[in-house]
Amino acid sequence: MKMTTSSVATSNSVGGSGVIEMARNARTAALVLASLSDELRCKALLAAADAIEQRASEIVAANAEDCAAASELVRQGTMSGALFKRLQTSERGVMQMAAQVREVAALPDPLGRELAVTELDAGLTLHKVSCPLGVVAVIFESRPDVVPQVAALALRSGNALLLKGGSEAQHTNTALARIWQDALRTIPEMPANAIGLLHTREAIQELLALDELIDLIVPRGSYEFVRYIFQHSRIPVLGHGAGICHVYVHSAADRSKAVAVALDSKVQYPAACNSAETLLVDEAIAPSFLPEMVARFVAAGVEVRGCSRTLALAGDSSVRPAEETDWGREYSDLIIAVKVVSGLDEAIAHINRWGSKHTDCIVTEDAVAAAAFMDRVDASGVYHNASTRFADGFRYGLGAEVGISTGKLHARGPVGVEGLTTYKYKLVGNGHTVASYAGGERRFHHRRLK
Amino acid sequence: MKMTTSSVATSNSVGGSGVIEMARNARTAALVLASLSDELRCKALLAAADAIEQRASEIVAANAEDCAAASELVRQGTMSGALFKRLQTSERGVMQMAAQVREVAALPDPLGRELAVTELDAGLTLHKVSCPLGVVAVIFESRPDVVPQVAALALRSGNALLLKGGSEAQHTNTALARIWQDALRTIPEMPANAIGLLHTREAIQELLALDELIDLIVPRGSYEFVRYIFQHSRIPVLGHGAGICHVYVHSAADRSKAVAVALDSKVQYPAACNSAETLLVDEAIAPSFLPEMVARFVAAGVEVRGCSRTLALAGDSSVRPAEETDWGREYSDLIIAVKVVSGLDEAIAHINRWGSKHTDCIVTEDAVAAAAFMDRVDASGVYHNASTRFADGFRYGLGAEVGISTGKLHARGPVGVEGLTTYKYKLVGNGHTVASYAGGERRFHHRRLK
Repeated sequence: MKMTTSSVATSNSVGGSGVIEMARNARTAALVLASLSDELRCKALLAAADAIEQRASEIVAANAEDCAAASELVRQGTMSGALFKRLQTSERGVMQMAAQVREVAALPDPLGRELAVTELDAGLTLHKVSCPLGVVAVIFESRPDVVPQVAALALRSGNALLLKGGSEAQHTNTALARIWQDALRTIPEMPANAIGLLHTREAIQELLALDELIDLIVPRGSYEFVRYIFQHSRIPVLGHGAGICHVYVHSAADRSKAVAVALDSKVQYPAACNSAETLLVDEAIAPSFLPEMVARFVAAGVEVRGCSRTLALAGDSSVRPAEETDWGREYSDLIIAVKVVSGLDEAIAHINRWGSKHTDCIVTEDAVAAAAFMDRVDASGVYHNASTRFADGFRYGLGAEVGISTGKLHARGPVGVEGLTTYKYKLVGNGHTVASYAGGERRFHHRRLK
Repeated sequence: MKMTTSSVATSNSVGGSGVIEMARNARTAALVLASLSDELRCKALLAAADAIEQRASEIVAANAEDCAAASELVRQGTMSGALFKRLQTSERGVMQMAAQVREVAALPDPLGRELAVTELDAGLTLHKVSCPLGVVAVIFESRPDVVPQVAALALRSGNALLLKGGSEAQHTNTALARIWQDALRTIPEMPANAIGLLHTREAIQELLALDELIDLIVPRGSYEFVRYIFQHSRIPVLGHGAGICHVYVHSAADRSKAVAVALDSKVQYPAACNSAETLLVDEAIAPSFLPEMVARFVAAGVEVRGCSRTLALAGDSSVRPAEETDWGREYSDLIIAVKVVSGLDEAIAHINRWGSKHTDCIVTEDAVAAAAFMDRVDASGVYHNASTRFADGFRYGLGAEVGISTGKLHARGPVGVEGLTTYKYKLVGNGHTVASYAGGERRFHHRRLK
């Protein structure tokens, strides 16, 4: 195992004002990264993947240090068991980190893609070409595998990265960032400071004010945390608010598919933002469908809260009456609200009223109803006969995700490398002037070449 | 000429709180617009274009009323002649408005485009499909032709629109909005309230707070005005800050192209944000190039402010010394700052340091230097041998523009219909559950179909 004495650049090591310095350095690095070849960017990712594997024990040792401190917090009751579990990694976890970096390296180059080409006039051609955003900042809680995942996505798309992890994972994050930085240093063309790690809470405050230096901020954590970042920075934020996902069982649903999809959407991982919180059932199918569905939920340990018609039809005394507020709740737990609706229109209206524009599903064998649902529900994911739990960057084939966005601007849903790019217009002429068009000597013909 | 007694929905007619009501109505309209066919959306635009032509005298009369009041302000010295000129329209201007609406109707449908298709597994296919943003608000100053232009772009892309024009153009804007609303009413499938017009300054304040109801806000006006909107709303803003554009004359430039491009970039319309403010000249070409260039600028009435080397080489006593602050100035006038640079690297560094990420041009016959410039300059438009004045939605072939963005997120540069769209992921399965992948029974194969 190669050891290094080089220290990782951190906000700690340079004091509070170091954050601005780090952001300026990242900006400088970004300008170099933007013109690196795809070959070099991939080489950097593969070098980092190798280094992660080779220095696995260093990562595991750093993680053990974090876990020792964290287990003390669990004993004192100031850290939850779930958080502790997410903090822990292992030799096998480290190998998975390396594998994920290699997956991102295997994606097609997100840069230099010609999104459109228009010949404006003879000899005057406009190319709309994808390019990096610049400097991306990611603020995340405990899970240390975010470091290699986000570093891979950022560098693959030619961006400089500022990372701020949770203090409970400080040693693991520092070890991972150091390994990345060492790996990048083996490639002479790579700019220094392509990846920077911040440590303190105060660093976040400083970061949020740097809208001139940072192009995008990605908060990964609780709803309250994401909301806080949204409200305290002028930097564009990519993140997700609530995850109130619906499954609507249409009158023409195949019942076994409906049961399978609804059950998976709720119980496969109820803490995830893409798990379902509300089941809508068409009144035409409710009498025959609801008793089986409710029985399956109850058998899976799910608490069912039903509207009055659900209560009447469910045939299960454990079903509790749903309140109006249940339609707007993100339980993140084994609880589901169930409502009988009069048909497609009421289902769509309910979702557009109460949903969070995350992911909503219709179960039906009627293609026309499915198409109407998918056009008219205003959400980043609209599904037909598939579990809402599929809303995930890896499952979508994005390699990994930098986050999930419930905003509509720029990137929506699970966001991979493409969400870390923008575009520039490259116009190639031959001494062309606007005056000759304004004067009528020349005319645009706007021929779309792509 | 058809006259109508139907009144246009305005914030005036319903009092202050009417803004929320209008935004809610626009939201409802947006959900209907999202599922209208392209045929219907085009039909609406063509109906509006016809109505604009048929009711031209109504628009001209309303404009005369605005102009009468405005000319009083010009006499009093509280309105500039330039502003007055932009307010004025004519029968011919109205015909141009109609023509522009027809151009937007002739664009390819921006909705329902499959941006990517991936088969995740057998029978489980993910479609990334373009769709409308929802509700777009445009706040603009005097120019009444903004109403038909923006209405066409918004409806073509399936969005509901809230408009707020300057009080000086109130009669013209109201007439135009009424004509649009009447035209839309002739199409039964069109939702009511697809277009709403606000009138008061207080309405803007209320609007800025409605981040739950409005998806995008486009301010069109002075730098200070755009900046104000940026800082006082949590709604995403599409707009442009400063326009500090550069022309860099490389050592391998064709001199006649360099003179033509630099001159056009500065003098063709100096008040525009895409006109050049700084000329950078390679030291290798400066001694032979600068005297001719400066003479041409001076002949065109341009004040030249030069660095010390420019002063020494220009051979014109009217050249004033440039201060450090000149490099960061948007003159919007017949003034240009000129600097001699050591080569490509210094030119790129200067632009990335002082530019506003708007539009920057290199003049050269060296394709390698041009490519390096275009990759490494961080701007929405990077040009080779073409005037910076080409940065415009119409010239780019976008039909029209809702605005120009100097931000990097979502849409960049001149923004047409595409910038008013987002996308949703449509996932079509057959009862697929995540549990079967987590359990290892099934595996994703992520086959990219498009």
